[in-house]
Amino acid sequence: MTRAELFAQIQKKSSFLCVGLDPDLAKIPARLRSEPDPIFSFCKAIIEETADYAVAYKPNIAFFEALGSKGWETLQKVQELIPRDIFTIADAKRGDIGNTSKLYAKAFFEQMDFDSVTVAPYMGEDSVSPFLEFADKWVVLLALTSNAGSLDFQLIKDETGRPLYQSVLEKSQEWGTPENLMYVVGATRGELIGEVRKVVPDNFFLVPGVGAQGGSLADVAKYGMNSHCGLLVNSSRGIIYASQGKDFAVAARSEAAKLQAEMAGLLARYL
Amino acid sequence: MTRAELFAQIQKKSSFLCVGLDPDLAKIPARLRSEPDPIFSFCKAIIEETADYAVAYKPNIAFFEALGSKGWETLQKVQELIPRDIFTIADAKRGDIGNTSKLYAKAFFEQMDFDSVTVAPYMGEDSVSPFLEFADKWVVLLALTSNAGSLDFQLIKDETGRPLYQSVLEKSQEWGTPENLMYVVGATRGELIGEVRKVVPDNFFLVPGVGAQGGSLADVAKYGMNSHCGLLVNSSRGIIYASQGKDFAVAARSEAAKLQAEMAGLLARYL
Repeated sequence: MTRAELFAQIQKKSSFLCVGLDPDLAKIPARLRSEPDPIFSFCKAIIEETADYAVAYKPNIAFFEALGSKGWETLQKVQELIPRDIFTIADAKRGDIGNTSKLYAKAFFEQMDFDSVTVAPYMGEDSVSPFLEFADKWVVLLALTSNAGSLDFQLIKDETGRPLYQSVLEKSQEWGTPENLMYVVGATRGELIGEVRKVVPDNFFLVPGVGAQGGSLADVAKYGMNSHCGLLVNSSRGIIYASQGKDFAVAARSEAAKLQAEMAGLLARYL
Repeated sequence: MTRAELFAQIQKKSSFLCVGLDPDLAKIPARLRSEPDPIFSFCKAIIEETADYAVAYKPNIAFFEALGSKGWETLQKVQELIPRDIFTIADAKRGDIGNTSKLYAKAFFEQMDFDSVTVAPYMGEDSVSPFLEFADKWVVLLALTSNAGSLDFQLIKDETGRPLYQSVLEKSQEWGTPENLMYVVGATRGELIGEVRKVVPDNFFLVPGVGAQGGSLADVAKYGMNSHCGLLVNSSRGIIYASQGKDFAVAARSEAAKLQAEMAGLLARYL
């Protein structure tokens, strides 16, 4: 998917919502567990009920991988089920030396047909660039994450006072463009999103941490939105586990609709 | 596997060789391609011929993942095939927020039965610690890798002049012990291995980059060996693709034997 196509969808739906698919057998409604592939049935119901409000879906690969080869079959079926005009993110946090990253790219871009993969930057350019060689496919590079451990290394300042996450932003600007490179930027520190936006004015951000992790959607939009919106704000648990009863899919729809309504207001205000 | 068991095996075999399993359909002997699972047949032959000389096997997960759910089935079969007294490393470079890392750990430690997983440190403690909660299982944490891109971030110096890889070493010493935490330390800069060894005297290093990538085994032993050996030196292509003909397994055995002989000399000299 191209940036123009993604932006067109954001405008059409008045939404920049990404729904995170973290399907946990222990949390899905009991009645689904008797189905042949409970995880698939769960994701299918969530996608059908939220597709009007979401511009992106982000399967968390670990939840499928933990189920072994059967989990990978389910992941492939889920990816194929997502409507083709909705952006897809394989949240896999991959990254290895060149020829190995190329194989990870093939796994997600050829063996499956995801639009993007999340990639960790620690190993540098040759671990990231192989993902950027596929037409209309994207890297979503970890910059500033929303977890407690992000403080351990990402904020370490170099000899010029520049934090590591900023080196990642600046260096990676040489590898990709706003047409194929996004960044993970956590929502838990609103004002830092503004700092990131100054360094990379044009790239999309995938923003986790709104809702369950405490970030404010209004702050994210205020500090992070650009002329192409430039934001995909993710919600996982808040939507997919809005109810664990029979009404889980309808409850997910309702939560997605609430977020979309708030996003429509923010798009009208800042875009 | 415990550290004592690993060290006992190193002494028994006079070897600290790790054989990297990077099975590429395009490179394996043509006659295997007609088998029902060519990748499995290839790995099986390599393991059978090198098990006398290797103390560890390191399947590169990308090579299996690129084949989808079938590749995961093959990976599971390969893991089960490796003799239980040989250390196994799932070279997966995983790492994500806590509950997600826990699922990756389950994938490799419970769904399969690997002894260790390679983990990327960028997201900090809560992305690494979930892997350390499994008894007799190990994290192999990226510190100083052997690829060109390692220069991009790993050597950035902080305000006190300390390079990032050293912060990773020091910080992670609070998370694990020499009984469950190893580090990836590339062989391509021999003298740097000595720097790393000063910071973490007791932990094992997984050392890629000997052979194809140009590192010297003698330098690695000179600068890196400790009282428990403390080294697993990996060779992938140099062994598994020593020949692409019918004699590939025998050629692999011969290359593994050569490395083991050199290692026996280095163990006698430095241990």
